[in-house]
Amino acid sequence: MQAKQETENRYRLGACLPVFGSCADRYCLSGYGRGASTLEGMLDLAAQCPGLQGVELVGNWHIHDDNIGSMPKELSDRGLAACMLTADLWTQAKWARGSLAAPDAPTRAAAVAECRKVIEWAEAMGNVFVDLWFGQDGYDYPFQSDYESAWQWLVEGVGAAAAHRPNVPVCIEYKLKEPRTHIHVNSAAKTLLLIDAVGAGNLGALLDTGHALAAGENAAEAAALLHGNGRKRLFYVHLNDNYGLWDDDMIVGSVRVIELMEFLYWLRRLDYRGWLTLDVFPYREEGLAAARESFAWIADLLRIIEEARPEEIERVLQAGDGAESVRLARRLLTGGNQT
Amino acid sequence: MQAKQETENRYRLGACLPVFGSCADRYCLSGYGRGASTLEGMLDLAAQCPGLQGVELVGNWHIHDDNIGSMPKELSDRGLAACMLTADLWTQAKWARGSLAAPDAPTRAAAVAECRKVIEWAEAMGNVFVDLWFGQDGYDYPFQSDYESAWQWLVEGVGAAAAHRPNVPVCIEYKLKEPRTHIHVNSAAKTLLLIDAVGAGNLGALLDTGHALAAGENAAEAAALLHGNGRKRLFYVHLNDNYGLWDDDMIVGSVRVIELMEFLYWLRRLDYRGWLTLDVFPYREEGLAAARESFAWIADLLRIIEEARPEEIERVLQAGDGAESVRLARRLLTGGNQT
Amino acid sequence: MQAKQETENRYRLGACLPVFGSCADRYCLSGYGRGASTLEGMLDLAAQCPGLQGVELVGNWHIHDDNIGSMPKELSDRGLAACMLTADLWTQAKWARGSLAAPDAPTRAAAVAECRKVIEWAEAMGNVFVDLWFGQDGYDYPFQSDYESAWQWLVEGVGAAAAHRPNVPVCIEYKLKEPRTHIHVNSAAKTLLLIDAVGAGNLGALLDTGHALAAGENAAEAAALLHGNGRKRLFYVHLNDNYGLWDDDMIVGSVRVIELMEFLYWLRRLDYRGWLTLDVFPYREEGLAAARESFAWIADLLRIIEEARPEEIERVLQAGDGAESVRLARRLLTGGNQT
Amino acid sequence: MQAKQETENRYRLGACLPVFGSCADRYCLSGYGRGASTLEGMLDLAAQCPGLQGVELVGNWHIHDDNIGSMPKELSDRGLAACMLTADLWTQAKWARGSLAAPDAPTRAAAVAECRKVIEWAEAMGNVFVDLWFGQDGYDYPFQSDYESAWQWLVEGVGAAAAHRPNVPVCIEYKLKEPRTHIHVNSAAKTLLLIDAVGAGNLGALLDTGHALAAGENAAEAAALLHGNGRKRLFYVHLNDNYGLWDDDMIVGSVRVIELMEFLYWLRRLDYRGWLTLDVFPYREEGLAAARESFAWIADLLRIIEEARPEEIERVLQAGDGAESVRLARRLLTGGNQT
Repeated sequence: MQAKQETENRYRLGACLPVFGSCADRYCLSGYGRGASTLEGMLDLAAQCPGLQGVELVGNWHIHDDNIGSMPKELSDRGLAACMLTADLWTQAKWARGSLAAPDAPTRAAAVAECRKVIEWAEAMGNVFVDLWFGQDGYDYPFQSDYESAWQWLVEGVGAAAAHRPNVPVCIEYKLKEPRTHIHVNSAAKTLLLIDAVGAGNLGALLDTGHALAAGENAAEAAALLHGNGRKRLFYVHLNDNYGLWDDDMIVGSVRVIELMEFLYWLRRLDYRGWLTLDVFPYREEGLAAARESFAWIADLLRIIEEARPEEIERVLQAGDGAESVRLARRLLTGGNQT
Repeated sequence: MQAKQETENRYRLGACLPVFGSCADRYCLSGYGRGASTLEGMLDLAAQCPGLQGVELVGNWHIHDDNIGSMPKELSDRGLAACMLTADLWTQAKWARGSLAAPDAPTRAAAVAECRKVIEWAEAMGNVFVDLWFGQDGYDYPFQSDYESAWQWLVEGVGAAAAHRPNVPVCIEYKLKEPRTHIHVNSAAKTLLLIDAVGAGNLGALLDTGHALAAGENAAEAAALLHGNGRKRLFYVHLNDNYGLWDDDMIVGSVRVIELMEFLYWLRRLDYRGWLTLDVFPYREEGLAAARESFAWIADLLRIIEEARPEEIERVLQAGDGAESVRLARRLLTGGNQT
Repeated sequence: MQAKQETENRYRLGACLPVFGSCADRYCLSGYGRGASTLEGMLDLAAQCPGLQGVELVGNWHIHDDNIGSMPKELSDRGLAACMLTADLWTQAKWARGSLAAPDAPTRAAAVAECRKVIEWAEAMGNVFVDLWFGQDGYDYPFQSDYESAWQWLVEGVGAAAAHRPNVPVCIEYKLKEPRTHIHVNSAAKTLLLIDAVGAGNLGALLDTGHALAAGENAAEAAALLHGNGRKRLFYVHLNDNYGLWDDDMIVGSVRVIELMEFLYWLRRLDYRGWLTLDVFPYREEGLAAARESFAWIADLLRIIEEARPEEIERVLQAGDGAESVRLARRLLTGGNQT
Repeated sequence: MQAKQETENRYRLGACLPVFGSCADRYCLSGYGRGASTLEGMLDLAAQCPGLQGVELVGNWHIHDDNIGSMPKELSDRGLAACMLTADLWTQAKWARGSLAAPDAPTRAAAVAECRKVIEWAEAMGNVFVDLWFGQDGYDYPFQSDYESAWQWLVEGVGAAAAHRPNVPVCIEYKLKEPRTHIHVNSAAKTLLLIDAVGAGNLGALLDTGHALAAGENAAEAAALLHGNGRKRLFYVHLNDNYGLWDDDMIVGSVRVIELMEFLYWLRRLDYRGWLTLDVFPYREEGLAAARESFAWIADLLRIIEEARPEEIERVLQAGDGAESVRLARRLLTGGNQT
């Protein structure tokens, strides 16, 4: 009970709206049909999800000039908050060859304008987080990108965005690939380089655990890089799961549960406080069920971590002995007998 | 010239229609907008592609009872043939949990009916090839599939389909994953097991070079397994390219060109004769340009292979020395100096 | 208690000797130094491992004409049995370009002789299992292998080996890669094709869970393919763990614990009975600790499976709903609350 | 001819000594036996390699206090130079759990001492490059590392090393994994973060093209990150090849030849000047043949790049059109017809 209280003081639970929508892929473009097809429908489903406190809204799709005034009430009527607004830099054909790092100047300018617009909406909603994900800013083939210019354009574009409203916290979300075969901002380390290059105080990182896994990272180490040693640049967390090779956006805890438990331990150790948001694509599942199961794993693991003896975990971390690490994880997870 | 003639006698060049369409992905569902949006538009673009002789048509989308009579003329007016009809077992929400191996009997029955329908259309068009790709028949999570039953249902369903019209050649297309995280029919070897289990003379394999790469196979070895040692079960070939981890459906030859050259050598050595069909998704490129570049690489490599001295290649294959293999590939590809 | 009894009736616990040795890699050839360096030392350590019943012996290294007479007593004095003899087809430079499928006939003949020799020793030790792993039979580069001949040689060589002593059970162990970048016998399905092609009753498969994961397989599905639907060709099981991209040979249960639980469930469902043998490389850990932790996870999971209600698991398998699969796995593993 | 001259002015060709040694792996610890087994033998082979100008020497193995005086003559007698000295932080059991970032202070101190020692030898040999590769500094399991401390220790240790002799250029070599399943310094971006954190002028990066590929990077983009936009921190280049999933250390150009061509183009564009050194492990090939084939591909590609029209390549880079990128690569590589 005490444990639950403490977790509630640290974290808030959010969800991206596709969790409650009808997820499509390139084969079944109309979606597999288990979720809602309208914003209102998705919000209604979200409102039914026990424990859920916030939802992410994508610019132009969910939030725009016409509903920016009414959205707060739409959400609060359902007991929800906006945990984040996401700039639409990747859902339209105009971003096919990039947004902030597109090879042509007009597209880059349009991307900066798009970022600024969503940042203004975020300000209007109370300085909520803004997510900038440069999924289209990359390349598919060798000899398809001027890497130097692309990096420079990213630094400039992010700088222009972050400077627009210094009170709005702006997150950079990294991902190794998809929809491009190579995305420029592809790792926690590169995100930090970008943040350092821009040098704005309201700029941080969004760590998506699935993106970390699919980039060959351990998500806990990525969090420590972003937030540890005084960095404090982990602004926001996305949770989902995958098999390590692709952003499968699976239900949280479904396959990499030990690494998830370690990640949640490190969030606590690093004193991260803020949103834990589901970025799950339940293509073939009921969204509500996918969210409940995700939150159930999260709750189980947060409870385990809170009830664990920190000094025992620290001792294992300092020992660096693999067998002890496995024993610790097993005993935490199953409460199994000591070997 | 002689070389070109011989290639033309062996192979026919085809394309899947998405090459000329507006390819979408899960982020940009409306497509990146560089292709045609109607069947007629795609066929018109296909007709402009030098060297292209055939197109694949997907059941219900491109071919159905209403146009089965007029389609041959639609195609021949454009100088095209139908190289293959594909059963629609993966584009609709009803196949979300599988087709021939769906956990519920009505869906399995519907899938068999779908296969039979497309086989009848194939018969009507002159016994053209039929493709069965079980992209939805798999699973995403542990504890989500009864693997034994799934295999049995695949054997029964494929058997029912193949028996429907013994003169229509039916191809099984394998793929490791996507849209499921695990697809049951995932390798050349498993395809052969399925073919053996069914035991029908009109059943063979479709080898997609990108699927082979993304499954950890060498496509040439997969072709040898399917077609060599008297097997003769390689019925059809899809060409595209990727980085080895995902079915990126890139332009042919764009990154794995040496393995492609080896694959084309082996097609000749195995005496495969038939279609070489592009299964490329030019999300951000003009389809016509993507097809032309794909065919340009194919033509260059076929010419290189025809002009090579087979006894030299055979000597290297028998030697099994890696340095000689690299030298051979380099000299074939660049005509570079002997080391 | 009842559960423990039943497990003990089904399975015997074994270990490969490197678990207790000083594991080396290509960087630290002298080994990381935590294990024994002699056979006797490794056996002494094995004897101290609670629950361990058998060890695998590699031909020429651990078992040979000089010690074949004394080995049974060496083992029984320590309360151990030989669970398997492995043909040495991969530890010496003479197999650099292959064993049964080497490009030169003398090497192939030597490999057959090596197989026969180890099979004779297996007969002498009471018809224990023999493992044939063709780790060197593959290729590293394009244009380095005559795939047709290689397959034919494998069929012939395995046939010659299996026929040598029909009462000795011979296992084919598959692996996607390492030490070659491509190994010919690379999947459960290809192993079955090989078994089918040889057609010997004493021929089956060794499933190494880490090899399955690193080949993109789900190990439970691989087991069902090998042993289900009346096949009954799963002769032997190796357990270890990895991140899905390489044969890391990690401690069992360390990262892919949910998939391991599913695998153990399927062994029971398929009525596999026999050895569960550790093939772990504890490079930097005490071997005894690595084995104990592996067996602790195995014991925990076997107990969980035995205490579960089979009808509940079956219901989830038949439903094919991902959210239910995740809920089942979570509740089995943690005994967590129902959602 | 002109082209050759220019290349010779830009680059010097080197090799790691395992190219000429008897490469071993964890299965065949005695090595596959095609190379020399002594330092002198490896140097003699190196001396026979046309075009080779330098070799890398590993501390304690190839260079030590006893031969530091005689080594320059040993090399110059063979027409060779030392292109780099590598600190031995990974070949001995004492580094099993790390070197500069080991969990225990004495090991960290010993690692700093080892770095300083090799830096002194590098000074004695004329301020040649020093390579620091932290292959053992990582972890294998969740809960096995204190990521914050590890990073801090790396910053301190590298700082202590770099400060020892400010005139000796020190390179940080990154790699995603192997021998650990996770290595702390795993990407070009993280290497830059480390360099930035240390802040020493004599500190730069070693880019190994195989490490880049196996980390999901495009090597050309990694080079641009390290050396472009005024960074100038690409100090040294290792060349080899692989399939994108593991550090296979294959012959240069053997499979990813188009990406290699792009990389070499970018080295020129970024005005990198210095060593191009082979880090190939020819397990089963004659080292001399592996080196010759590697250099042959390098020479062919450097010639192609020098003869290409830069404005044409730049136009394609700025266009960002995949089909044009593929056409460019094909025409450069084969001189094929325009499409």
